[in-house]
Amino acid sequence: MMHEGRKRIIIENVKPEIDCGHFPVKRVVGEKVLVEADILTDGHDSVSARLLYKEEEEMNWKEIPMKFMENDRWRAEFIVKKIGIYYYTLEGWVDHFRTWQKGIKKKFDADQEIKFDLLIGIQQIEEGSKRASGRDKRKLMEFSNLLKEADIEKALSVALDEELTELMDKYPDRRFATSYGRDLAALVDREKALFSTWYECFPRSCSPEPGKHGTFKDCERLLPEIERMGFDILYLPPIHPIGKANRKGKNNLPQANLDDIGSPWAIGGEEGGHKAIHPKLGSFEDFERLVNKAKGYGIDIAIDLAFQCSPNHPYVKEHPEWFRWRPDGTVQYAENPPKKYEDVLPLNFETDNRQELWEELKSIVVFWIEKGVRIFRVDNPHTKPFSFWEWLIKEIKGKYPDIIFLSEAFTRPKVMYNLAKLGFTQSYTYFTWRNTKKEFTGYLTELTQTEVGEYFRPNFWPNTPDILPEHLQFGGRPAFMMRLVLAATLSSSYGIYGPAFELCVSEALPGKEEYMNSEKYEIKEWDLEQPGNLRDFIARVNKIRKENPALQMTRNLKFYEVDNEYLLFYGKSTEDLSNIIFVVLNLDPYHTQSGWVRVPINELGIDPTQPYLVHDLLSEDKYIWHGERNYIELNPQILPAHILRVKKRLKRETDFDYFM
Amino acid sequence: MMHEGRKRIIIENVKPEIDCGHFPVKRVVGEKVLVEADILTDGHDSVSARLLYKEEEEMNWKEIPMKFMENDRWRAEFIVKKIGIYYYTLEGWVDHFRTWQKGIKKKFDADQEIKFDLLIGIQQIEEGSKRASGRDKRKLMEFSNLLKEADIEKALSVALDEELTELMDKYPDRRFATSYGRDLAALVDREKALFSTWYECFPRSCSPEPGKHGTFKDCERLLPEIERMGFDILYLPPIHPIGKANRKGKNNLPQANLDDIGSPWAIGGEEGGHKAIHPKLGSFEDFERLVNKAKGYGIDIAIDLAFQCSPNHPYVKEHPEWFRWRPDGTVQYAENPPKKYEDVLPLNFETDNRQELWEELKSIVVFWIEKGVRIFRVDNPHTKPFSFWEWLIKEIKGKYPDIIFLSEAFTRPKVMYNLAKLGFTQSYTYFTWRNTKKEFTGYLTELTQTEVGEYFRPNFWPNTPDILPEHLQFGGRPAFMMRLVLAATLSSSYGIYGPAFELCVSEALPGKEEYMNSEKYEIKEWDLEQPGNLRDFIARVNKIRKENPALQMTRNLKFYEVDNEYLLFYGKSTEDLSNIIFVVLNLDPYHTQSGWVRVPINELGIDPTQPYLVHDLLSEDKYIWHGERNYIELNPQILPAHILRVKKRLKRETDFDYFM
Repeated sequence: MMHEGRKRIIIENVKPEIDCGHFPVKRVVGEKVLVEADILTDGHDSVSARLLYKEEEEMNWKEIPMKFMENDRWRAEFIVKKIGIYYYTLEGWVDHFRTWQKGIKKKFDADQEIKFDLLIGIQQIEEGSKRASGRDKRKLMEFSNLLKEADIEKALSVALDEELTELMDKYPDRRFATSYGRDLAALVDREKALFSTWYECFPRSCSPEPGKHGTFKDCERLLPEIERMGFDILYLPPIHPIGKANRKGKNNLPQANLDDIGSPWAIGGEEGGHKAIHPKLGSFEDFERLVNKAKGYGIDIAIDLAFQCSPNHPYVKEHPEWFRWRPDGTVQYAENPPKKYEDVLPLNFETDNRQELWEELKSIVVFWIEKGVRIFRVDNPHTKPFSFWEWLIKEIKGKYPDIIFLSEAFTRPKVMYNLAKLGFTQSYTYFTWRNTKKEFTGYLTELTQTEVGEYFRPNFWPNTPDILPEHLQFGGRPAFMMRLVLAATLSSSYGIYGPAFELCVSEALPGKEEYMNSEKYEIKEWDLEQPGNLRDFIARVNKIRKENPALQMTRNLKFYEVDNEYLLFYGKSTEDLSNIIFVVLNLDPYHTQSGWVRVPINELGIDPTQPYLVHDLLSEDKYIWHGERNYIELNPQILPAHILRVKKRLKRETDFDYFM
Repeated sequence: MMHEGRKRIIIENVKPEIDCGHFPVKRVVGEKVLVEADILTDGHDSVSARLLYKEEEEMNWKEIPMKFMENDRWRAEFIVKKIGIYYYTLEGWVDHFRTWQKGIKKKFDADQEIKFDLLIGIQQIEEGSKRASGRDKRKLMEFSNLLKEADIEKALSVALDEELTELMDKYPDRRFATSYGRDLAALVDREKALFSTWYECFPRSCSPEPGKHGTFKDCERLLPEIERMGFDILYLPPIHPIGKANRKGKNNLPQANLDDIGSPWAIGGEEGGHKAIHPKLGSFEDFERLVNKAKGYGIDIAIDLAFQCSPNHPYVKEHPEWFRWRPDGTVQYAENPPKKYEDVLPLNFETDNRQELWEELKSIVVFWIEKGVRIFRVDNPHTKPFSFWEWLIKEIKGKYPDIIFLSEAFTRPKVMYNLAKLGFTQSYTYFTWRNTKKEFTGYLTELTQTEVGEYFRPNFWPNTPDILPEHLQFGGRPAFMMRLVLAATLSSSYGIYGPAFELCVSEALPGKEEYMNSEKYEIKEWDLEQPGNLRDFIARVNKIRKENPALQMTRNLKFYEVDNEYLLFYGKSTEDLSNIIFVVLNLDPYHTQSGWVRVPINELGIDPTQPYLVHDLLSEDKYIWHGERNYIELNPQILPAHILRVKKRLKRETDFDYFM
């Protein structure tokens, strides 16, 4: 087959583009999509190119002229304004008019004859006028006439006239334009997908009466304090009936006592399964009232999607074919040899009755959406097929585009990244186990400066009910403060499992990263007023996040130099540099550390000859800094970090009050 | 649409794969294709994967088990044995049998009950036996019976038995296997595509009689010496009639004298066009005899494909629509303002009569193939549409898969790379203008260690009739030797424009990189016996290339450390390390330079405690080296480089003669 050989443009190496366009990039409302591509043609002719984009349901593409950068690289950007899917693609063509302009200018400068070249230009303008109409058409004809009548000097200035160039750009000859050939997608979420502050707590421990099983009503009472601390998502572990068969005892003992209440992740009992509520938590009415009350505080209630069943789950009887059965006639519980999870049955996604299973699981999500839930924390998504999640999330977001899914996958990196690619809105990360400067810079650079940042939105958790990391076991209160500042400033989304976090609970099972007397297996009585609690500190950090847009993004993170291995120095700023935040943090919870930072003053447009003010938003201290090198000293017993807002010197001469 | 959710494998990040599989990778016969991919599944199940490959015309895929590396990365390779197209793709599946083996082993080690697990394995083996036949089927049934009868200890060893594992691997359950979904291509050329040594000369200067126009017969006389010097391709600039209109004079003067013979690239006169021979060179018989004689010396005759016409070319009258016409009724000559090439008309690839033009150009290639030409040096391919070349090369190689096309594109890097991607076998490069250690390491790393190496085969030219680079103008004989060694050892394909090269011709137009009295515009009388000529040196370098397989590849290049900015140290070796070559080269043609190299002894398996011999194949000197650090001193007036063959110490104790 012979090509349409007159399409002379090549468009390649388009960014962003995930896996040949198979997956969308992710954005939230108001963010931009900056598109770059190599666009080239044979020979010396000029190229013009446009970025085309549209919302999913729109018929027509909007067009933005692309700008040439260097080395055949072109660039343009658009802002996404609505939740849903946007498409974008590229088009390029050989621009004979611009080629002509370039040539005639060079010939004129070299004192060459341009008489006949002018005739070629006139012909092009007249062809252009045929593509135009109304005023533009008339205007182009005027230019053509001007060119015919003008002397050489004058003709050249007409040929290069800006208005003429704009008009010809408006009506280009695109008969032989090359389309990129793939429509790339951007999935646009609401802002909370990027900027969110999670608080996880067990409603059953929320009762004010010691030992009593908490209820949704008890949770309501806590909302003002959760709001005051600055959280906007309250995530509840599974709220469903809990199985009795093989129920685990305290500290995950294989045998439960009669009064043990079981892990909420062993979902399903005679009271029902994933569409039921644990009777001791309350009614559907109670749940919906909690959701609505929370909304009044700007808080979303997130629930847990844990697609697994206790042996007592109604599905086991109704759909035995959704489970695996052992040769002895017993149902297969979850195991990762030699570990056994006898209170939990995995679903068999390879069942022949797969379609019914998938639809049922989808109906669970829809069920809770209809009860007012817009955010789901998904338990262990990496133990269910990728294709299931891709289907489920697409189905749900097609109808409810504002839903947020958080992937709780602590597993191999490529598995975690794939879950994000196929649709999860946010993802758990390895933050919990990153400790040294090298680990933070390496991991955060991967998350924020590579293609990963286009689809993987990190959500940083210093602790979870499953994980009490070593540094929190031994680092004391300074370690909790340090991990909070890290999570809250490195990532625009983070969360804590409370009240264990704000009370600095550090007792672990010996030699393990698990809580002693874990709340997963028993009701806890928390003394929220306990001295040394971090509630005010957390409130302050979250207030700083709310007031500083630079901290509401993650991919703007940059690491800077500081000459002490225990100090970490990084910054975030808005694109217009109206908000610049530096964080300097002492990674050593035991000792005071000091050093000299190197402030990127050129990058941030700070005048090297003038002092500038940095305002520590944590301590309210203010420092006058000068030039690149400035001294830092952090005593972890007082505050393990500075969160500094940079105030660049104003241009007015008399702003002495600026340093006050 | 609901996915086939039981396909639980993801295959991604496949290498090599060019532009989502749009372009093939390139290999020559005998090379391997090493394929890597991320292959992963949900959960903890074992994965199995195969690399599938076949020749274009084969019906069935051959399969090679892939090996797990780390971090979900898998690898396998195959050797290409025939010229043409190979396809390769991947398949992966969840391997329940291996999952079972892994689990039962862990459970046994943890002293857990495995009675019922054994039953599961028996069931899997019996299912496996249904997929097998003959002896394998019986064998599997035997294993199943063994398992049924054995006690626990014995059962475990049967479960993990190697033969059982192999048999189950041979008959896996691939019902839910995931195919990669794209068939990737490898274009396989003959060996000369990778390893070739070009000699360019103008036949019209080959006459032994001073001032007389040379002929093909004169060229025949030169063949023994061209072979002795070690060249295997003799490339002739265009051999067609030359136009008279606007003919250029000596040194590219706009006006020719009556006795000026014109540039051979101004193709076409009253004697004919691209399918005619310049009458003074000889007849078609003469040409075919030259081709055949050359073949006897192992030399391919390469001709020039310069798709452009002199104003006297028959096409101008026969197909005026293939050219551009100016408003004054004259035909448009080539120009890149302010430069003008009045003796050359470009073809108008945007003509409406495009199909006929393309077919005619293709017929030129076929015409010369039928005259025995298998190698074409393509002039300025970057000034014709990419899609034309993609079509042409595919058409030609579909019928004549051994044809080699060398792209003479000195232009922007992405244009050069695209011409290679779309089909050119070899490509001119920026080697000609690379001078410093940093420039060589940067450029060669890009060419050999990145994806570029999968499709772009560099051909290094120290000079061409168009280019006498500055370092050859001023560096004298040492510079010519140095550039020859660089070209011949950095790249497995290289060429020189002779005799100007071996005679160290260095006189340029003042301030330009062009030859004074260029052979492009006049007949030259070369004195091949001139003192100081490099013929023997060239012969020696090319002999070294022929005798050392490590130098017959390019992507095996590695740069090593040497503590002098004027010294360049690099090496090449065969994969089995049976041939190891080091090159140390003095980039300074004026002064002796010395320094300490750091030999990669670990990488090459050299015993750090034992001396080893390096044999300078240029000087025949031998050195005994020891460990990493060894001293080098190079006087450019003697030899600007070492080409060292490394002899690793043999294991025998008595090989003292080894050091002789």
